[in-house]
Amino acid sequence: MMLNCDLGESYGAWTMPVDAEIMVHIDMANIACGFHGGDPLTLQKAISLALEHNVTIGAHPSYPDLQGFGRRSLAMAEDELIACLHYQIAALDGMARAQGGHVEYVKPHGALYNDMMQDTQLRRGVLKAMACGPVADIPLMIQAHPAHEQLAREAAEFGVVLLFEAFADRRYTPDGYLMSRKHSGAVLNEDDAFTQATRLMDDGVIIACDDSVLSMPVDTLCVHGDSPGAVAMAEALRVALTKRKLSHVRPGTNA
Amino acid sequence: MMLNCDLGESYGAWTMPVDAEIMVHIDMANIACGFHGGDPLTLQKAISLALEHNVTIGAHPSYPDLQGFGRRSLAMAEDELIACLHYQIAALDGMARAQGGHVEYVKPHGALYNDMMQDTQLRRGVLKAMACGPVADIPLMIQAHPAHEQLAREAAEFGVVLLFEAFADRRYTPDGYLMSRKHSGAVLNEDDAFTQATRLMDDGVIIACDDSVLSMPVDTLCVHGDSPGAVAMAEALRVALTKRKLSHVRPGTNA
Amino acid sequence: MMLNCDLGESYGAWTMPVDAEIMVHIDMANIACGFHGGDPLTLQKAISLALEHNVTIGAHPSYPDLQGFGRRSLAMAEDELIACLHYQIAALDGMARAQGGHVEYVKPHGALYNDMMQDTQLRRGVLKAMACGPVADIPLMIQAHPAHEQLAREAAEFGVVLLFEAFADRRYTPDGYLMSRKHSGAVLNEDDAFTQATRLMDDGVIIACDDSVLSMPVDTLCVHGDSPGAVAMAEALRVALTKRKLSHVRPGTNA
Amino acid sequence: MMLNCDLGESYGAWTMPVDAEIMVHIDMANIACGFHGGDPLTLQKAISLALEHNVTIGAHPSYPDLQGFGRRSLAMAEDELIACLHYQIAALDGMARAQGGHVEYVKPHGALYNDMMQDTQLRRGVLKAMACGPVADIPLMIQAHPAHEQLAREAAEFGVVLLFEAFADRRYTPDGYLMSRKHSGAVLNEDDAFTQATRLMDDGVIIACDDSVLSMPVDTLCVHGDSPGAVAMAEALRVALTKRKLSHVRPGTNA
Repeated sequence: MMLNCDLGESYGAWTMPVDAEIMVHIDMANIACGFHGGDPLTLQKAISLALEHNVTIGAHPSYPDLQGFGRRSLAMAEDELIACLHYQIAALDGMARAQGGHVEYVKPHGALYNDMMQDTQLRRGVLKAMACGPVADIPLMIQAHPAHEQLAREAAEFGVVLLFEAFADRRYTPDGYLMSRKHSGAVLNEDDAFTQATRLMDDGVIIACDDSVLSMPVDTLCVHGDSPGAVAMAEALRVALTKRKLSHVRPGTNA
Repeated sequence: MMLNCDLGESYGAWTMPVDAEIMVHIDMANIACGFHGGDPLTLQKAISLALEHNVTIGAHPSYPDLQGFGRRSLAMAEDELIACLHYQIAALDGMARAQGGHVEYVKPHGALYNDMMQDTQLRRGVLKAMACGPVADIPLMIQAHPAHEQLAREAAEFGVVLLFEAFADRRYTPDGYLMSRKHSGAVLNEDDAFTQATRLMDDGVIIACDDSVLSMPVDTLCVHGDSPGAVAMAEALRVALTKRKLSHVRPGTNA
Repeated sequence: MMLNCDLGESYGAWTMPVDAEIMVHIDMANIACGFHGGDPLTLQKAISLALEHNVTIGAHPSYPDLQGFGRRSLAMAEDELIACLHYQIAALDGMARAQGGHVEYVKPHGALYNDMMQDTQLRRGVLKAMACGPVADIPLMIQAHPAHEQLAREAAEFGVVLLFEAFADRRYTPDGYLMSRKHSGAVLNEDDAFTQATRLMDDGVIIACDDSVLSMPVDTLCVHGDSPGAVAMAEALRVALTKRKLSHVRPGTNA
Repeated sequence: MMLNCDLGESYGAWTMPVDAEIMVHIDMANIACGFHGGDPLTLQKAISLALEHNVTIGAHPSYPDLQGFGRRSLAMAEDELIACLHYQIAALDGMARAQGGHVEYVKPHGALYNDMMQDTQLRRGVLKAMACGPVADIPLMIQAHPAHEQLAREAAEFGVVLLFEAFADRRYTPDGYLMSRKHSGAVLNEDDAFTQATRLMDDGVIIACDDSVLSMPVDTLCVHGDSPGAVAMAEALRVALTKRKLSHVRPGTNA
């Protein structure tokens, strides 16, 4: 299981904190592409940091909405959306190639991510964009969900592989989605978040808000970068993952 | 000598005319990259048209200034400018690769183009951007000028090859620059433009406004796309160039 | 019945045609406020033209979406929407006051206009914005509809007066909305548009696509400014309205 | 002497700190107008805070450059600049009027402020904008300077009154401008800043970097809001000013 984090979201004089601090603890950097955050210089620096720390670079494209930080649904036509995704992925990938890296996966941002989970037609638009995009054969990161097999089949129609992402610090509803932040208890405290994460590592399940057990494969955990507490959490999760990885290595194997 | 034209400059509901009409007559399409014009869907369509007509694709990056269409000088720091150019070139190149093409040269747009001709430090910034950019080893298109040898040497310091561009329909000052549009006579009528172009083809010179003779190598002529008359002019120049090309082909050669 | 037209929608180098031509035929100018079109200089010129021709100035605010020309629904929170409307109305009103005019009504643009007709909560947000806005006690222009009494009561809760607008050249569905442009026959030809307009003037009704009769009060007809045919149509409607006005004037009255 | 501070510069998810904390210590709030920072909701809140604390509201307009936070010179034509200033002043003034306030002065932001001090033609453009702007007869805040009489005469040509602003924490060059931040010693430490401020209050002079004495009237001191230290400095300056104000009040006078 890998740790991923949204990064490169500063814009001009406005900074989002701790790209550098969190980078040492994560495996995958979802780097903004300029449409919800991320001016060109910010992208260049985030890419540079990711390469320095051997962190895999992912494109984190958004609806075009700087003022709303990509958190507001925007009713784009499918052809507009596809071109908009291609532009952003291309921009980040080319800037990465200028530094010897490249984009290895795509994770939609904010409202686009949420809308994609709820709206089949939109999700198919995103998959279509992946299938004919500027970087061939890279996976799409979406939210881990009990209906993962159906989601994977749908993606396979477009020749796209999925990476399933779970959230350590968010409570889940019985239908496998995130509880809205409007409800109290939607965000877990650090202890509960750590418990939720390690349960996923050990048993592959999440306990929903009604105590039902959600079984879903998870490739990567999302770590937030916007508070000092988040850096400590990333570090704790990294330690927990490393322990488990080591315990799987047997003497005499090549793993 | 090749014909180039600025294209892909529509933005959302606002259209700049005749990409399709002019494409059949030109060799090189300078396609906007989204910072002075060119929303993602517009870029996608311009790339598609260029590929359909076997027209070479160039990136046409700008200062970030949609409201001013990139025609206003903006005092960017060198690191900002380089990142800004990389972002735009990368975006267009990746979108072209999604369609099987790629960016083969860069021509700065508007105020950036003019500033680059006048300001050595800025031009060195552009050259630096080319030297470490998302697409390796592609030429930079700049304005043809009597000081071409010095310009070429400067570019060579950065490992960059130059393409020299002249304007058929603009009058030149004795020092080899364009007469400002503020002066009457700055823009030639169609007959004079055609004469200026064919003189360049045949003799490699331009007659400046004081009748002095400017000698400069020219790789490409700029054709404007924003009037029906421009399409006719592009066609006439294409015919003139083809005639000269044919007259250079001798039976029994491979040219 | 008054004629209104959307104007001031150019942006920098991109022009939307014929502000000047249409201005002589209309009563009310819905002037863009910069969020879907309308750079400051364009607004200034549109205001100047309106004042010169004694045309009433209305604010034509939009979702913040230049790239989409305000034609894409954007999920704004109510407080964001209200501030966004206030900003735009204020900008136009102040620019008008700098020239001796002022904003006399508000007509939302594009997707915001359509969403407001369909979504009660959003419409109440717009009404709330009107009730506490930068210009006190000005009417809101919305689409004329058979449910006009209910709409007027709702607006009255907020102390807002409505202006009802109909479209000469669009076919109506039996429930009183516009047929989507995706359906053939959604846009009327010039003759049918003129007939629909004069029927409204004379009888206060519209014949829907299923020949049912929609009865609704109409304060103003929308005229489009983006084709030469539109100017001719505006002129024809102006003549038709003037005739009817004159025929209502009796000798000895003050009307 | 009054204390002023730049406020309302957050943009969407990106926040600039401590509007609320600094507001209790200042007399004048220079509120961003959306072109370098300040989304509509941010403006609304900054206005509300200013009104709550009886702080005078000033418009803080900028070149249109969100990405550069208005800190990069942009070569605007005079008519563009004037319309751009009118739009921003109008937007803020109208939003203030929606809450019962209004704009009482204008202070250009960032590069526009600096350019205005150095470039007579640009400064005359700004004065022209003030003379025909959306809010009549309000002063323009510019940098205090030994040539204040000449500056005031120039402004008077346009019927504009000037407010002179000095900086407590910046070192001055012998010609009366700010030493560039590129030079060490350009920014004073807190003690030296406090000394510079109180010397201005008591003697009306600034000691330049070469120990020469610059005599200039100062109406207002600029206080920065972007660090906790800044709040303490604002408070200290407020106390120093209050002491001096009290010592000027004699029993039996109305001052």
